[in-house]
Parts: sequence; structure tokens; C-alpha cells
Amino acid sequence: MDNLKLNLEFAKNLITSFIKEEKEKIGLKKGVVALSGGVDSVLVSYLSTLALGNEDIVAINMPYGELGKKGSEDSIKICEILNIRYEIIDIKPLIDSYFNLEEMDNLRKGNFMARMRMNIIFDKAKKFDGFVIGCSNKSELLIGYSTWYGDMAASILPIGDLYKTQVYLLSKYLGIPDYIINKVPSAELWTGQTDEGEIGITYEELDKILYLLVDKRMNVSEVIKEVFDEENVKKVKKMLVNSQFKRRFPPIPKLSDRTIGIDYLYFRDYKYYD
Amino acid sequence: MDNLKLNLEFAKNLITSFIKEEKEKIGLKKGVVALSGGVDSVLVSYLSTLALGNEDIVAINMPYGELGKKGSEDSIKICEILNIRYEIIDIKPLIDSYFNLEEMDNLRKGNFMARMRMNIIFDKAKKFDGFVIGCSNKSELLIGYSTWYGDMAASILPIGDLYKTQVYLLSKYLGIPDYIINKVPSAELWTGQTDEGEIGITYEELDKILYLLVDKRMNVSEVIKEVFDEENVKKVKKMLVNSQFKRRFPPIPKLSDRTIGIDYLYFRDYKYYD
Repeated sequence: MDNLKLNLEFAKNLITSFIKEEKEKIGLKKGVVALSGGVDSVLVSYLSTLALGNEDIVAINMPYGELGKKGSEDSIKICEILNIRYEIIDIKPLIDSYFNLEEMDNLRKGNFMARMRMNIIFDKAKKFDGFVIGCSNKSELLIGYSTWYGDMAASILPIGDLYKTQVYLLSKYLGIPDYIINKVPSAELWTGQTDEGEIGITYEELDKILYLLVDKRMNVSEVIKEVFDEENVKKVKKMLVNSQFKRRFPPIPKLSDRTIGIDYLYFRDYKYYD
Repeated sequence: MDNLKLNLEFAKNLITSFIKEEKEKIGLKKGVVALSGGVDSVLVSYLSTLALGNEDIVAINMPYGELGKKGSEDSIKICEILNIRYEIIDIKPLIDSYFNLEEMDNLRKGNFMARMRMNIIFDKAKKFDGFVIGCSNKSELLIGYSTWYGDMAASILPIGDLYKTQVYLLSKYLGIPDYIINKVPSAELWTGQTDEGEIGITYEELDKILYLLVDKRMNVSEVIKEVFDEENVKKVKKMLVNSQFKRRFPPIPKLSDRTIGIDYLYFRDYKYYD
């Protein structure tokens, strides 16, 4: 399967042009990135700095106490390499007061943390007269392995069409340090959490299955014929279908001549004022 | 302009059927409403209770200290009328620790509060094995008078195709008490805030302008000819255009055969697993 390979120079140029153009369209001064120290947000920081220059990027690192300590250290190193401004905000004292109100399982806690970070990153964007450059990749967006209105929420999603395995390829191409690339991917919502452990499939297999299902429009039986594990293919298809709601505007029952999300759908950059 | 009139019985039936059907599709047990005590969230509570029955609705009231006291009192009365379960959570202690970190203007504070409420309502939905029934109306969605990823964020938006003036008509039709209907509309993000004061136009005029621009597809000069204030028409058109980004999935630069939000757009209820 060579089709997950990327023309890396082209991808770099397309994404940086996109970020630059979006900034001009939006008309705000700074790009603000929630930098966790993971490969996705580091790649987005690199691409954004290439696109806008180091003066116009602000990185916000938001550890949850000790859980994010390593990520903070790595984030600082990256900000020093890129020579970009950064702030570190420990979200632990900000959300433990809610966690103390009742018994919450890890899933609820993780979602709450992701949405708290979204809240802060949008506030920081306002503070710096900027917009939020999101870090979601195609793999997680397609299977819904991300928090709706949390880490998925951003002004733009520059790596939203890159599978996780492609995120690695582009990161290596841009010279992102090994101590970032070699980390085990984790949302760091609790100690010991790993993406692949939680999803139950390696990113390599996941991306191949998604590529055939989505980009190649194959059905489940066709993908299974391409010699993949039947159970995993069915599982991925299920995640794909069941997370569709996260990728759409919430549904509205149609009563009028034109309804938001149904037939009032102007494109985002529509700027016709007459 | 009689065209903002509604067939109220039809609207009631359509919206309650929608809520019922969405619950079945989503497959979760409860509908959860962020009830502020304002007319929009009270109407949504009424419609949701009609649709799902009082046992399957949970209302969450989230005052910000004293600012939401009146709203809490009114919300409790409504929950007693509808005989629905409710919880009250004062968000002040939860967010003042962030407000204390730096100087924030009212706009930043208001957005932060709206997103904190979103975070809590989604957490409560998880707690009760439910989905979030949003309270945004068409007027505020169209001019962007609501917080992106804040009060706009929900699982479904049952009154998203009702203008604010129509919200009042349907509320009266359903017998919602006068002490709710006669309140001056306010997002209550700070003391003394009123919607109409902040928007700078009455809802009556706003809705007429929006109706002609959106539903009747008139351009600005045509709407002005219908004897409206030129400045207000231009202002509304500008708000309409400039808030378009809030009603779309964030843009992704296209690199692959199928890109989320561009050409990977299955409808929300797509349930084809093969």
C-alpha cells in the first residue's frame, strides 16, 4: 500500500499556504496553538511558524498537573527551537474543583479536560487577537477519537487531511526531533493511556483500513479481501459511522424557507455584503 | 409582514417529533437541557418534556453567582411545573480561579462562561446517559450572537429554525408563564446586559430583516426598499456574513481523495455498516 505515501514537499507547501491564506481571510493577528508536546501539535507548530513567522505564533501548553510534566518540558524545547512565544497553564487547579463535585470515570474526566483546554485556547486567542489553529489529524477525526467541542474545536484544522502515519512522515521531513517522534502516542488523559491501546488497533493498520474505506470507497468485505483482520475492519467501519455526528453541525428541524445546516449553507469565506 | 407568523400547532408537532426521533436515532436515555430560566431554554424544556416525557428530561441550571439568582429561581419553578429532574451548579467558584489569572474584559468572560456551561452540560449528559438538547434560536445563530463551541454547541438544536419573535409566539401558545415571557432577553453574562442593547436592534426589527435576507433571499437594497432603516439592514447583513464561520466545520486543506467537510460529507444519520 504505497498510497498513504505523501509528496512531502507538496504537502508542506499546501498546508503552509492554507494557514497563511486563512489568517488573511480571518483578519486576525496571531495563530494560537494548543501545544501538548505530542507529534500532532508539534507538527502544527512547525507548519504554522513556517507559514506565519515566529512572531505571529503563540503556543499554549496546558498540562494537568504531573500528568503533563513531560509534555511541558518537550513543548518548551520546541518553542525554543522555533523561537515562538509560549504560556504554560496548569489546568489541574482549574478543574479539580469540578472533579471534586462528584465521582467521574476516566472518560468523563478526559472529555472535561479536553473541553477546558478548548475554553482556554479560545480565550487566549481572544487575548492575543488571534485564531485557533487546531491539531486534529484525519485518523482521529474519522474514528471520532477526539472530544467533540474539545480538542476537535478550532478555527482551522491544517492537518485534518493527514492520517497519523502521514503526520509522522511529514514530521520527519521537517526535521522535528526524535524525542517528539519516538513518543508513544497518548492523549494523556490519564496515566498510562496510549492511543493504540485504547483504540485497540495500531495506527498503521487503522490508517490502511480508513484509507480503503474512505478514500478508496471500498465496502467492508472488499477491505477484508485486501487481507486485513475482519474484526478490525468491522470495528473501524463502526467507529467511522458512529462518529459521523461529531463532524456535522447539530441537526435542526426544518420549519422555514431556509434552514441552517440544511439549505442555508453559504461557504465559510462568503463575503458578499450587498 | 405576516410571514413570520407560524402555524403553532404544526411547529409544536414537528419539533416534538424531531426530538423524539433524534433520541431514538442517538440511542441514549435522557435529554439534557441547560436551563437558564430565559424564554429559549424554557421553551426547549417544555417541548422536550412533551416529546420525551418528564421522566426522560434532566435540566441543569448553571448560574454565575448572584448574576444567575433570578434565573435559578425561575428555573426551579419551571422544573416543578414540568415535574422534571434538575440540578443547580454555580459556575462562579469553578471559573473565578481562571478569571483571577489575568485581566479579562466582559466579552472574554462571557465566552469563557458559555464554554464552561457547555463543558458541564456535556458532562452531565454523559452522567445521565443522555444527549444535549440545545437552546439556540435562528436569530442568534444567524447573526452569531452566541458563543462558538459554547451555548451553540449541542447534540441537537430543536428551535434552531425559529426566530426569536417566533420563540415568543410558540411559548405563549404552550402556556409558558408570563414571568418567563415578559423578561427582558439577556445572555446574563454581566449585570445589566440585554440582548437588544448589545445587538443594537430590537428582535422585532432584526427578525424581519433576517427573514427578508435569508428566507426571501433579498439583497440589502431590496430589504431597504421594504422601508427598513438602511444602517440596520447593512449591520444585520454584516453580522450574518461575518458569523458564517460559526455555522461550519473548521476548514481543512484538501490533500487526499476524500476530505472531511469538503467531499466526505455523509449525512449524520448514515448507518450503513457494510
